[in-house]
Amino acid sequence: MQYIENAAGRIVPTQVNGRETLPYQGVGKFLPQGRKAAPPIRSCAQYAPDGNKVAPSLIEALRRAGLRDGMTISSHHHFRDGDLLMSQVFASAKVLGVRDLVWYPTAVFPCHAPLLAYLDAGTIHHVEGSLHAAFGRYASLGKMRGAAVLRSHGSRYRSIQDGDTRIDIAIIAAPAADAFGNCSGVGGRAACGPLGFALADSQYADHVIAVTDTLVPFPCVPWHIQGNYVDQVVVVDQVGDPAKIVSGTTQITKSPDQLLIAESAAQFVRDAGIMRQGFSFQAGAGGISLAFTIFLGAMMRATNTKARFIRGGSVRPLVELLNEGLTDYILDGQSFDLDGVRSLRDHPAHIATSPFTSYSYHGKGNFASLLDCIVLGATEVDVDFNANVVTHSDGYLLHGIGGWQDGLFARCTILTLPTFRDRIPVIRERVTTLCGPGELIDVIVTERGIAINPRRQDLLDALSGSKLPVRSIHDLKAEVEAICGGAPQSARVGDQTIGVVTWVDGTIIDSIKRVA
Amino acid sequence: MQYIENAAGRIVPTQVNGRETLPYQGVGKFLPQGRKAAPPIRSCAQYAPDGNKVAPSLIEALRRAGLRDGMTISSHHHFRDGDLLMSQVFASAKVLGVRDLVWYPTAVFPCHAPLLAYLDAGTIHHVEGSLHAAFGRYASLGKMRGAAVLRSHGSRYRSIQDGDTRIDIAIIAAPAADAFGNCSGVGGRAACGPLGFALADSQYADHVIAVTDTLVPFPCVPWHIQGNYVDQVVVVDQVGDPAKIVSGTTQITKSPDQLLIAESAAQFVRDAGIMRQGFSFQAGAGGISLAFTIFLGAMMRATNTKARFIRGGSVRPLVELLNEGLTDYILDGQSFDLDGVRSLRDHPAHIATSPFTSYSYHGKGNFASLLDCIVLGATEVDVDFNANVVTHSDGYLLHGIGGWQDGLFARCTILTLPTFRDRIPVIRERVTTLCGPGELIDVIVTERGIAINPRRQDLLDALSGSKLPVRSIHDLKAEVEAICGGAPQSARVGDQTIGVVTWVDGTIIDSIKRVA
Repeated sequence: MQYIENAAGRIVPTQVNGRETLPYQGVGKFLPQGRKAAPPIRSCAQYAPDGNKVAPSLIEALRRAGLRDGMTISSHHHFRDGDLLMSQVFASAKVLGVRDLVWYPTAVFPCHAPLLAYLDAGTIHHVEGSLHAAFGRYASLGKMRGAAVLRSHGSRYRSIQDGDTRIDIAIIAAPAADAFGNCSGVGGRAACGPLGFALADSQYADHVIAVTDTLVPFPCVPWHIQGNYVDQVVVVDQVGDPAKIVSGTTQITKSPDQLLIAESAAQFVRDAGIMRQGFSFQAGAGGISLAFTIFLGAMMRATNTKARFIRGGSVRPLVELLNEGLTDYILDGQSFDLDGVRSLRDHPAHIATSPFTSYSYHGKGNFASLLDCIVLGATEVDVDFNANVVTHSDGYLLHGIGGWQDGLFARCTILTLPTFRDRIPVIRERVTTLCGPGELIDVIVTERGIAINPRRQDLLDALSGSKLPVRSIHDLKAEVEAICGGAPQSARVGDQTIGVVTWVDGTIIDSIKRVA
Repeated sequence: MQYIENAAGRIVPTQVNGRETLPYQGVGKFLPQGRKAAPPIRSCAQYAPDGNKVAPSLIEALRRAGLRDGMTISSHHHFRDGDLLMSQVFASAKVLGVRDLVWYPTAVFPCHAPLLAYLDAGTIHHVEGSLHAAFGRYASLGKMRGAAVLRSHGSRYRSIQDGDTRIDIAIIAAPAADAFGNCSGVGGRAACGPLGFALADSQYADHVIAVTDTLVPFPCVPWHIQGNYVDQVVVVDQVGDPAKIVSGTTQITKSPDQLLIAESAAQFVRDAGIMRQGFSFQAGAGGISLAFTIFLGAMMRATNTKARFIRGGSVRPLVELLNEGLTDYILDGQSFDLDGVRSLRDHPAHIATSPFTSYSYHGKGNFASLLDCIVLGATEVDVDFNANVVTHSDGYLLHGIGGWQDGLFARCTILTLPTFRDRIPVIRERVTTLCGPGELIDVIVTERGIAINPRRQDLLDALSGSKLPVRSIHDLKAEVEAICGGAPQSARVGDQTIGVVTWVDGTIIDSIKRVA
């Protein structure tokens, strides 16, 4: 494997899983010259005129799809930790005696841990996607044959669109579908919200199989995935466990530090003048992000400040803002709780989005850069405001990358994080793994104060009259190191590259090493 | 120009407008082997981060798009006879001194007649699309430099998708849009309904310009056209004349013959057992089709028979059926009146469709073949149930082809037409121009009786107990010829090919000759 130093000073391979790659060149520096991927042309003459694409079983559908050694099988994570489908897919593949598959998910969850057995057994060659928890640890220990390729949600769409990744068979888990293959995320027993993460797969894969436990008469609407892209439909007993797909209620964190960070971030958004009539924001469903939304919502109510749109991951507090008229729209990439799912189904201003509309960097713009602010987490930041979101300071790859990189393009990107975890400072001289370049990260909010990127003099000026504890990142770092007994050690890793982090444009921004 | 006899016995050219073409091979016989068109990859780095794509003027937008001699400019017909945009586009092109453009519209209307001056002047080389009225006459007289290429709505989508046609600049007229380029057909002063006819153009053109007179703050929803496909946005004083885009009220025909035909067609649908719980149908907005919908609706009410879905062209009578609960859904490709537009905007079961979902033959199925029946018109039929919808018996090309060919794939295709027009019988030994193969046409309903295709013994059996005047097509032909004084003459045409009719799969089903 050959290596090269990229524009961020990181050493990255020039080839990943047998494919030539380009080193990261800086934000907005790499301009694509090529043309989009061109999937095969099909004809109605090859499909039943009555629109019935139902195959008798999952294994038969895979056989008809021509499943064979080495193919790339994609899936999506709309069912989150309640996914019951991919274990059936790989069990079927094993029964068919197929080996060395590449699994190309949008994310993996703890429920997928048993699938590691298929990597051990050789059914799966490697997982090309964001890894998490058990899968990340497996890769970090050098047990996976291929490299993990971490792509953001937008970059995964881009990769498929650009032809960097070719999907042989896409598996689309659908809460409800009709026999023609139209899939809805708001019907059925496992309603999960938008299905946008499967959009690129449906558009570009050679073969598309929709799997549902709720077959409805044509037309299944809203068709979040269009049946005209679908080859086969499979009906199974259960596609997902509703209790683990969405939570019935979203609970706010009880951690005093997390609440303090969330409230500070909301105050920052208010005091910096970002919270104004017609503004927009995005926050996730994690503990701090959810609390941020609740704090900011209260400030919006108190001042009758109305947003033009809020980007979900939708959760109950967002739905409440919509219902109270405090935002015109929710633009929603995924629904994290039942209120989100119901609102998407019933409220005409709760709109499903996709990684194409929201995140893909190789489009004619995307929604991410239209946001006034975004609140994200991180595992580490450094004094240049670079951030890490996938590895811990010990080098283990433990988190997926989600839409994190895509979101950095908001007008004001705020990272919320505690200053240390397990007694290890997370404000460092240099992040263990570079996921986001500091030039895109504007504010870091911790329980010990707020650091504003010196590039953002406008924000520093706006906060000059605020009571918020604005401090330099070097001050914060020094304070935490004093508490924790010095700067954190570097991760103890070897030379073997077990994964790479791609930038939103497909270039390689950093590599991840095997933990020693 | 070389010619070949196709599977329907028609002599067709092997090259059209400089491009190799294939002869028609029969229904479902040609299977495409290639891959879809691959438009250029763009990057967010090439677009303003704030999402503002507004250009100062139409002419400046065309300049920035790199408009130059010989380019293909596409447009769509959502504004129907109220389009105010394309004259501005070609006037701008003329000012810029650009020549020999190919205009690739989804349809032309009488309002476009003044644009013939741009063909005379050389600004436009030829119109590659369905012609109508003045444009058809112009072509029929041999005045157009290139050949008219008549593609159905589905085939136009297919042609762009398959790369048969490459669009340099797509012009999308939008009743409402935001600065990012999201376009809605149900907002603004010129609300027209769905914008699906522009879908392929947005997805595949090298450059996409959205033009609106109603700029709204982001997000413009529903985004019938997604801004992520749009390069520039232009704001003009007026994009369309609302009075000519949609009619405020849809009036039923007063012609006794047309009413008789419409009622007979509805009775046929009832007596043949097609009108049953959960059925589906499509009829257009023409005189007979509209009356058919009203007659059939009355029968549905009388028997409380509920459709699963009705395909629009939406019109008030369809909207009434939806509101009365007599259909679960309207699947709507275009709205012909204001009731249709409002219903699409406000009723969650009134769903916008596109030529991709409904009509493209090179998809994984489409909606057309899922319909229980469709009612269409024709200019001529022949004793083999072949039909013509574009030329008159004098050989003049006077009608666009619309979604007519695509619709033929319904389970029961009914053509409604009078037996003669201007004293010329329209039931012939052989149609002047072949648009639809007889094997797809099941029933012909006239004011003198109903002819059922002998291939459909099931329909003949179903009608055996009916009082409807079922007759052989030969009987009908003989009767009309006796009235009109003999069989109609053949059109007096020369050898020069002025246009071709493509089949839904892109093969050439017939050619159209210059009128002598």
